[in-house]
This record gives sequence, C-alpha cells and structure tokens, in this order.
Amino acid sequence: MIYELYYWPGIQGRGEFVRLALEEAGAEYIEMALVPEEQGGGVPAMIQFLEGSEVARPPFAPPFLKAGRKLIGQTANILLFLGPRLGLAPRDAAGRLWTHQLQLTLADFVVEIHDTHHPIGGGLYYEQQKAEAKRRSRDFLAHRLPKFLGYFEGVIARNPDSVKRLAGKRLTYADLSMAQVIAGLRYAFPGAARNALRACPRLRALHDEVFARARIKRYVASGRRLAFNNDGIFRRYPELDAA
Amino acid sequence: MIYELYYWPGIQGRGEFVRLALEEAGAEYIEMALVPEEQGGGVPAMIQFLEGSEVARPPFAPPFLKAGRKLIGQTANILLFLGPRLGLAPRDAAGRLWTHQLQLTLADFVVEIHDTHHPIGGGLYYEQQKAEAKRRSRDFLAHRLPKFLGYFEGVIARNPDSVKRLAGKRLTYADLSMAQVIAGLRYAFPGAARNALRACPRLRALHDEVFARARIKRYVASGRRLAFNNDGIFRRYPELDAA
Repeated sequence: MIYELYYWPGIQGRGEFVRLALEEAGAEYIEMALVPEEQGGGVPAMIQFLEGSEVARPPFAPPFLKAGRKLIGQTANILLFLGPRLGLAPRDAAGRLWTHQLQLTLADFVVEIHDTHHPIGGGLYYEQQKAEAKRRSRDFLAHRLPKFLGYFEGVIARNPDSVKRLAGKRLTYADLSMAQVIAGLRYAFPGAARNALRACPRLRALHDEVFARARIKRYVASGRRLAFNNDGIFRRYPELDAA
Repeated sequence: MIYELYYWPGIQGRGEFVRLALEEAGAEYIEMALVPEEQGGGVPAMIQFLEGSEVARPPFAPPFLKAGRKLIGQTANILLFLGPRLGLAPRDAAGRLWTHQLQLTLADFVVEIHDTHHPIGGGLYYEQQKAEAKRRSRDFLAHRLPKFLGYFEGVIARNPDSVKRLAGKRLTYADLSMAQVIAGLRYAFPGAARNALRACPRLRALHDEVFARARIKRYVASGRRLAFNNDGIFRRYPELDAA
C-alpha cells in the first residue's frame, strides 16, 4: 500500500503528526503537495477533494489520507486508522481506544497552542490580533500549558506497562505526536517551555528518545522534514513567550 | 450493561452528546453527578477519576463513561465506543471511521462555538473578555458558522444511502450530535442561526426529525434534559449575535 498524504505545502502543521507515524513505520507514502499539478498533485488536487461535488465523503480540512479507495480526514482519525496497520498502536481494543483518547487530548492541546497566536480568527493575520494574542498567551502559559503537560507526564508515570511510553509497552503514534508537540512548544515558547518541562522528566525523555530513533533521525536529516516557521501551528513570537 | 456517565451537573455541555445517544438507544445509564456523595457519586467521585493516583488511565476532563471496568474519556471517543453497541453507527468499518470523522469535525465546531464567549481563557469570566468575545463572534458568524453548516449540509446532500442522514442509511450518533449543535446555535445566536440555516434545509429537517423521535421526545419531556443556560457551551449573550 502506498499512502497518499494531502496537506498544505510549506508547513509541518497537523500533517506532521501523520508523517511521523508513516516515517517511523517505514511506510511508503507520497506527499501529494509536492507532486506536480499535471500529475494530479499540488494544492488544486487537494482542493478538489475538499470541494468537488463528486466526492461522497469530503474531509472538512487537510490533512487527509488516501489509502487505496479510502479517503480519511481528521488527524486523530487518520492515526486511529493507521495505528494498527503500522504497528504503532496496542494490540487490544481497550488499549487502542485509550491511545486514541490520548491523541484526542493532544489534538485539544494543539488547538489551544494554535489559538495563542490566533485567538480571534484564523482568517486574520497575527498582527490584526496581537493584543488579544498576548492576553491569551499569558493565560495559556500560566494555566493550560502546565495542566496539559502535567497530565501527560502523569499518564506516563501511571502506565503499568512501561516507564517511558504513554500507552502500553510498545511505541505508539501518541508517543510520536507527544514528542512533536514538545518540539513545537520549545520552538514557539522557548522560555515558558523550558520552565514548564522542568517538572516533566518523563516527557523530556520521551521527546529525546523519539527524535533519536533511527528512522526519525533519518527523516529529520533527509531535508524532507520542514523547519518550524511562523506559518504553522507553533510560531515563535517572542512577545508571546514568558521569561 | 448499566453505563455510568460522569459530567458536571447543571449544564448540558459535552455530556449531552453522550446522553442523546444513550437516550435514543434506550440504554440504561446513571448520571453520576446526581448520585449522592455517600453513594459514590457527585462531583467528588468525578474528581477522583481525574486526579486519583490509582487511576491507570485518567481522563483529562469530563465527560467520561464507565462501562464495566472500562473508563473512557473524550466525547467523540465515547461515541466511537458506544456507537456499535447502541446500534447508532454503520455496520462496516469504513462507515464507522467516516461517522467518527464527522463527529470530530463537530467537536472542532463546538470548540469554536464555545470560544466565541471565551476567546481568552476558560478560567476567566465572560465579562473579563467581553470585548474580545465580540470580535471573535463577529468573525465566527461571518466566516466559520456558514462554512461548518455548509459543510454538513453538503455531507447529507452527498450521502448516497440516505437523503436525510449524515452517514449511511440508519440514524447515527453523529446525526444526534448535529441536531444538538443546531439546537444550541439557535439558543446562542437566534438571529445568526436563522440566517445561516436558511441555506441548509437538510440540516433543519435533520434537527426536526431527531427531536421528534419518540425516545428523544420522552427524554426532553422528562425534565432530565437540562435547559440551555449561560454556564454551558451554547450561551445567549445578545451582544454577540448578529441581526
């Protein structure tokens, strides 16, 4: 199976959570945004799936994955589908549901991280909502960031099957996504992330282990992993960070 | 199986999406917030699951469901679990994934609806973020509300198996949640919802059909369904509505 991943070009964004799972598993996939338009790729092909009236099950937004004739949207849903196929989910049904639950909580976290720089509307520029962004970021860094990180740190601490994983014994897609969120937080809020992560040794170790894995290292070194930048979810606006 | 539903007392909130599924299926469940503390209910019992160090798989937030020894959090995940058990999900795996995808998109919609009155932080009062709420609501009503409603209207229009359902031939939990969102929008934004729903005859019909179903009618008439109020997701602040 060669998967086709549809996502905006130029940013890691939510597509990166899917990419990390595909990369860790050594799965074959095509980044459709990089395929020339005349070969059925690029943004126009993506828009066609979102808006084409012949699409019976249109995604609301990217990322979405084409797996044979299946078209699957919503990041967490894509990972729910891919997890067992890529060997990145627990084998039992209860463990899979729990892993998905963690992924959904990560998705909530990601929305709140994104909204620190876009508290008023995604269609407006940051500069048009900078005052509100400062206020929301202050609240996020004081209350939400430690709450979310403390929660996930506690999840690893309570995992009866592993001292370093969120769910079960084996690496799951939720571990990969968690590591990506930590990397993103360190990019966006270097000061606040350092402070908040002091209390989270298990999360720091999880991040380091994920980015030291052979296939993830190869992916990062390949140049295919885009750098964080100020068009994505995690943006570095120094005025939003805490000292 | 008698399910135990844990959610904040006094509001419909996200718990209501789970309740509507349980009610429509005629499932037995206990609203744990209404059980006296000395019988293991109330808010303290709920907090115990969120914070107790003996809980191996703690939810991040309510609602969560206890089903035998399983403890399941995240609204969409609870419905993913309940759907097949309650006969409220398609029978095929692809149909279930699609229904879940729709539920996740509804969850995204609900976050945006909530954040119209809390754009800065959930820990602050509305009155502390009223100016920002006005700005966010204006953007939401102009851009996001019609985009989400248009999407779901289109999903029904494209459903090859039914002219009135979001997914497949039979009623699913996503149909119930969609109807609840429409009811909530009409409460919160009576002017803007009326305008936006003019272009959505299928969603209006879906809402009416769901709330005309025998078990849902009985639930609404029972007094157990709480009224919408200004502590929940959908709040009526006339200054946020459009004419």
